[in-house]
Amino acid sequence: MERIEGGVTVVKGFKASGVHAGIKAGSTKRDIALIYSEFPAVAAGVFTLNKVKAAPLIVTQERLAQKPFAQAVVVNSGNANACTGEQGIEDAKEMAALVAQGLGIEEDLVMVTSTGVIGVNLPMEVLRKGIPLAVAELNEDGGALAAEAIMTTDLFAKEYAAKTEIGGQTVTFGAMAKGSGMIHPNMATMLGFITTDAKISPEALQVALKAATAASFNMISVDGDTSTNDMVVVMANGLAGNKEINLGTSQYDEFLKALTEVCVQLSKAIARDGEGATKLLEVQVKGAPKLEDARKAAMAVIKSSLVKTAIHGEDANWGRILAAVGYSGAEFDPNLVDIYLQSSAGKERMAEKGRGLVFDEAKAKKILEEKEIIILIEMNQGESEATAWGCDLSYDYVRINADYRS
Amino acid sequence: MERIEGGVTVVKGFKASGVHAGIKAGSTKRDIALIYSEFPAVAAGVFTLNKVKAAPLIVTQERLAQKPFAQAVVVNSGNANACTGEQGIEDAKEMAALVAQGLGIEEDLVMVTSTGVIGVNLPMEVLRKGIPLAVAELNEDGGALAAEAIMTTDLFAKEYAAKTEIGGQTVTFGAMAKGSGMIHPNMATMLGFITTDAKISPEALQVALKAATAASFNMISVDGDTSTNDMVVVMANGLAGNKEINLGTSQYDEFLKALTEVCVQLSKAIARDGEGATKLLEVQVKGAPKLEDARKAAMAVIKSSLVKTAIHGEDANWGRILAAVGYSGAEFDPNLVDIYLQSSAGKERMAEKGRGLVFDEAKAKKILEEKEIIILIEMNQGESEATAWGCDLSYDYVRINADYRS
Repeated sequence: MERIEGGVTVVKGFKASGVHAGIKAGSTKRDIALIYSEFPAVAAGVFTLNKVKAAPLIVTQERLAQKPFAQAVVVNSGNANACTGEQGIEDAKEMAALVAQGLGIEEDLVMVTSTGVIGVNLPMEVLRKGIPLAVAELNEDGGALAAEAIMTTDLFAKEYAAKTEIGGQTVTFGAMAKGSGMIHPNMATMLGFITTDAKISPEALQVALKAATAASFNMISVDGDTSTNDMVVVMANGLAGNKEINLGTSQYDEFLKALTEVCVQLSKAIARDGEGATKLLEVQVKGAPKLEDARKAAMAVIKSSLVKTAIHGEDANWGRILAAVGYSGAEFDPNLVDIYLQSSAGKERMAEKGRGLVFDEAKAKKILEEKEIIILIEMNQGESEATAWGCDLSYDYVRINADYRS
Repeated sequence: MERIEGGVTVVKGFKASGVHAGIKAGSTKRDIALIYSEFPAVAAGVFTLNKVKAAPLIVTQERLAQKPFAQAVVVNSGNANACTGEQGIEDAKEMAALVAQGLGIEEDLVMVTSTGVIGVNLPMEVLRKGIPLAVAELNEDGGALAAEAIMTTDLFAKEYAAKTEIGGQTVTFGAMAKGSGMIHPNMATMLGFITTDAKISPEALQVALKAATAASFNMISVDGDTSTNDMVVVMANGLAGNKEINLGTSQYDEFLKALTEVCVQLSKAIARDGEGATKLLEVQVKGAPKLEDARKAAMAVIKSSLVKTAIHGEDANWGRILAAVGYSGAEFDPNLVDIYLQSSAGKERMAEKGRGLVFDEAKAKKILEEKEIIILIEMNQGESEATAWGCDLSYDYVRINADYRS
């Protein structure tokens, strides 16, 4: 897998745009993004497990369930269209209809998503003007503007692109994401959009996206809340000329590996951009009895407010780490666990076989002064492993979130 | 139930003490508490579900499982005796033996618990001097000093006492607790100690304590972490002269109601003392399909960092509340849910049938300026209800926890 410059429009056959429509009064930022595939693409999506689902997710999820193909995805920022009742559903459908009219494609090939304030109906008059503008601005270099248009509290736009060989053919991936402070229900969260020229069956694409998400987007946490609008979609237009990828083949394994890497890179970018974050935190659990245990343990540590504040304070508080593993729900024997802190400044063992060690405080402090910290938890009781990504918990997290609406 | 002044020693037949031994170098605070029952009392305990359990909990839990009676409980602060290996178990047993020797009682009638730093062995030479001192200082008014001796980061000592009628006889309860920032793995957490003169069977006492805990200590959260040392114990010496309380009787129901009230009062005191807390937050879920759903929903809201920061910022951000209910795991239909904010300054509906309302921002702000805030979630789809207690998330929480060990 080789990283290349750019985002969703590096893949041939895709165009994108990001325009300013004026959804949030007083803001001049770009607030409508559109990705367009010149050909109907195989499409798959994963959606929030929150019982409270935003209207565009309900509409998009139903459409993909009926027909796993798409030719466009439209995104607005500034308003989540969540908790907006029947009107919200109608508005989401109208957004799709406006895109379909502008592009001359079928309405059920348009996916819709929104991010922003909850509980306020969309200003449709703004979207009725803005969506045609987004259609008019579509172009083969529009990826960066689209990535900018989906930002809310994000401090930087998140793009990723790469190419790899699958079955002897070069396959390209482009991607963009938003998310900062996972999850920010009002600002609606974590969104991921992936384009690829791979030729793949709808079933294989859906299964691969679900697996890739489980090892990436589902393994990050900035504050542990999950939103009403979380969604990741992928469109595969088949232009790479590879033999169609199906489940149970080695090409599928290659595709899954590549898609997972794309999702991990987007996830790390989101974790790094956590609200108020000053450090990227990576929790590696190794030697766990089962994959499920490894994931539970890694997620409990990455979510722990006590661990996150200790990392912010550069305090080698391994007791909080072991305690978080203890309440994670993972099945394990605490008396076999070793804990290490690691960064570019070195690696130091804090605990061995579940007991505290007398460690080098000065060295631990040096390790924690770096911007990227790894907590390594060696369970020594199996072969499974998992990695989770997050950030520290700072004063600024409180400041940003204490008065978000104003 | 009538509240009375005092703590664990208001109940006749109980003595207590709180002394300074010097467990934490440089500290002059009282650090050993002892509660003594002149007669062997029926005893019951509930213990942390964390897989990583401190040595004294392992010892005490085993003793109570073998023989549900006790005559003393000793507590040290300053060191949790957790993650301390085989030596930790021996030290916990020696603490019990020192108490038994001093009091001239059987060793297996002594319960032990510790709270403080994780991963460091107890300074037994200090305890060998301190425990005899605690025994010597035992007296009928010692409850307040005992409550002081178990404090760690607590800003105030937590005592509660009350009397009520059970089966026509007056029964008295005394109690003390520690906890601030639930849960603070290094400082080891939430401890509760309850004395009563009720006559009750061991089985009824254990079942009652478990039920009372489920509706109180298990429904508070300051930061969502659970500790290696959490423990609540109750001793019932039978001096009230009531007919023995057994399961399935109306006296049992009366006892459970009283014990639950004692536990709720201690729990609210802990929530109020959350690290950096400026407001006590109460989440009431009503009209839920099942008790389990009500509890899950209430706990998800009380734990949400986004809700807690919004309350700190006095921001009526109901979308975060509904989103937290949505990811709580509770089974419910979001389209039936109403959400209210309430305090001594009034009550205002924020959302109706899962949709945002245009509400009076000025009134909402006034409600949130108070020190005790109620979030009321009316699910309108059943008869079950639950209440959870917590606090806001402030800058000071980050400050306190970012460099706790130093």
